Amino acid sequence: MPKKSTGFVLRPRLRVARGKEIALGPGKVELLEHIAKTGSITEAAERMQMSYMRAWTLIKTMEACFRQPLVEARRGGSARGGATLTKAGTEILKLYREMDAACVRATGRQWERLRRHLRH
Amino acid sequence: MPKKSTGFVLRPRLRVARGKEIALGPGKVELLEHIAKTGSITEAAERMQMSYMRAWTLIKTMEACFRQPLVEARRGGSARGGATLTKAGTEILKLYREMDAACVRATGRQWERLRRHLRH
Repeated sequence: MPKKSTGFVLRPRLRVARGKEIALGPGKVELLEHIAKTGSITEAAERMQMSYMRAWTLIKTMEACFRQPLVEARRGGSARGGATLTKAGTEILKLYREMDAACVRATGRQWERLRRHLRH
Repeated sequence: MPKKSTGFVLRPRLRVARGKEIALGPGKVELLEHIAKTGSITEAAERMQMSYMRAWTLIKTMEACFRQPLVEARRGGSARGGATLTKAGTEILKLYREMDAACVRATGRQWERLRRHLRH
């Protein structure tokens, strides 16, 4: 049966949580990705249309959950203040992305069936 | 290596969306589950601490995305107004749950590695 393209997509929005404490979720991971890409918390915050203070708070919330820092000031950074992911931050981001991809693969068969119920 | 129990859990929070239009997500699915369990939109809304109107709006939002109704009035229901899932609603709920379970299984290996980074 041909795939029906409804425009709908299935998004895993994995969350690592303990009660109301959220260590990782789509927003925090997007922030880490932007920091890795731009080398700057300020830039990353701008791209996500949030304040620097909000980005900083998200980083501190994540770091309270993990054993090691995820983000570090980059020596020799620009005047805007360079930042980069630590080794732990990089690995955590990689594992999250892998889990995200694994979900998409693992749900393929049911998603094909579910999308047939969706309207065009 | 023994599993480290940090109290953190990985929750897939699958969302079926087209832009800002959300056909299914954890909240809508929980509502469907409560309707299936209680046989009543009113009861389901109460259990989720939302108004009947809010529950009704969520159902209508879902149904705008699907080809067939998901919830139907149950004939011979109580004075509170019985409701049940349609055949399509039941199948859609089942597929969502299966996708959820498939995600948990598929992410097991990476989750083991990620949780080692979490604090106790």
